[in-house]
Order: sequence, then C-alpha cells, then structure tokens
Amino acid sequence: MSNIESPFEKHVFVCTSGRYCPALDGNSLEIHKAFKELVAKAGLKGKVRVNNSGCLDQCGHGPMVVVYPDAVWYSHLSLDDVPVIVEEHLVNGRPVERLRYHPPKPGGNRERPSDTRPA
Amino acid sequence: MSNIESPFEKHVFVCTSGRYCPALDGNSLEIHKAFKELVAKAGLKGKVRVNNSGCLDQCGHGPMVVVYPDAVWYSHLSLDDVPVIVEEHLVNGRPVERLRYHPPKPGGNRERPSDTRPA
Repeated sequence: MSNIESPFEKHVFVCTSGRYCPALDGNSLEIHKAFKELVAKAGLKGKVRVNNSGCLDQCGHGPMVVVYPDAVWYSHLSLDDVPVIVEEHLVNGRPVERLRYHPPKPGGNRERPSDTRPA
Repeated sequence: MSNIESPFEKHVFVCTSGRYCPALDGNSLEIHKAFKELVAKAGLKGKVRVNNSGCLDQCGHGPMVVVYPDAVWYSHLSLDDVPVIVEEHLVNGRPVERLRYHPPKPGGNRERPSDTRPA
C-alpha cells in the first residue's frame, strides 16, 4: 500500500447535468471540454483532473465549476473564462476572485425548478 | 454578495461513468443512490452534497468515491460500506481508514482500458 492519499493535486468538477448549466444558463459541455484541453496543454495532466458532475444544486447561477480541495466555486462562467482559471488558478495557484461564486446562503440555491435528471 | 465561500461542508462524488464503477467493478449507481438517501436520513441535506461524477481515472479500483474538501478517496466499495462512511465520516468527521484508497502512484491509475464515455 502506498502512502499517497489523493491521486490529484487539484480536482475540477464542471456541472454538465440537466438543462441549466449545459444549455439554458450557458454551455457547460464546451466549458468542460475546454478545461480538459487547456489542462492537458498546460502540462497538468496527472496533476489536475477535470470531471463532469451531476447538479451542484445552484441552478440558475451556472455554468458552475468547483475546484477541490480548495473548495473554490465559480459561477456564471463563459468559455472565455476557462483559460483565465487554468492559468491563474490551476497553474499559478491563485483563485480568480472576480469569477468566484458567493452563494446567497449555505446549501442549495436554486433559482430555477429542479430538473428530472439524476444529480 | 455574501461572504459564504462554499455552499456545502462536504461534497461526495461517486463515479458513475463508463462500465467499470457502475457495472464491471461493482454497482456505483446503487452506491450513489444509497449515499443520497442516507445523507438525507442523517439530516445532512444542505450540508453534504452527493453527486455523480465522470471517470476518476482509477478504473479497476472501483467503485470509487471521493469526499472533498477532505480529499479522502475510497475504493472497491460495496453497498454495505455506504452507511459506515455516512455515519463515521460524514456525521462524525472520521474517515474510514480501512476503506480508503491509497493510489499506487500520483495521477491516473487505470488497470483497465479506457471507456469511450466522456469523463
């Protein structure tokens, strides 16, 4: 058994669930793809993992992304924001303050009705 | 703008991608469902979020689960392990050492060929 506790230094989750993040609020499928491409291009493959995720329970604030273990959340993202987050946060370790999400309250913050897709 | 940085105290991701975690290595769809039910039953809804995720790049060690911001990974899970993790880790804050994953090396650790599904 190795002493390694976590295989990745940073883990990026992009909500691609339901209709809001991927369609009505933006285009999180393109954002997910861009993160994967730019992380590889920055030489971070194997250090930073990019995954899609189910609904983050903040529908209407998307596209949403969360970076762990930092627990830094980004909201209302566009495709143009991805290279900025990759360069500033994932490469240089500085979260992009202007893009951060500050939820109105703890827990779920849906501004839109729930989808029928699994979360 | 609120001062809240993260809407959840803990965030559980269950790989439900491809064929390995959900089928060949176990049944991560049932595990995902059980986490959601038991987290709600424990009164943690709004504090602990359970999501499915894309492939965690450890195919063959699954079903895989990761709990953030702790960055505690669990591998080879069965349905019986879920109430233990909910009670010991999510309710009482003590990771379940015997179920933890210690990856052989940093980065991807696939023992099986890649799937064709998006990660």
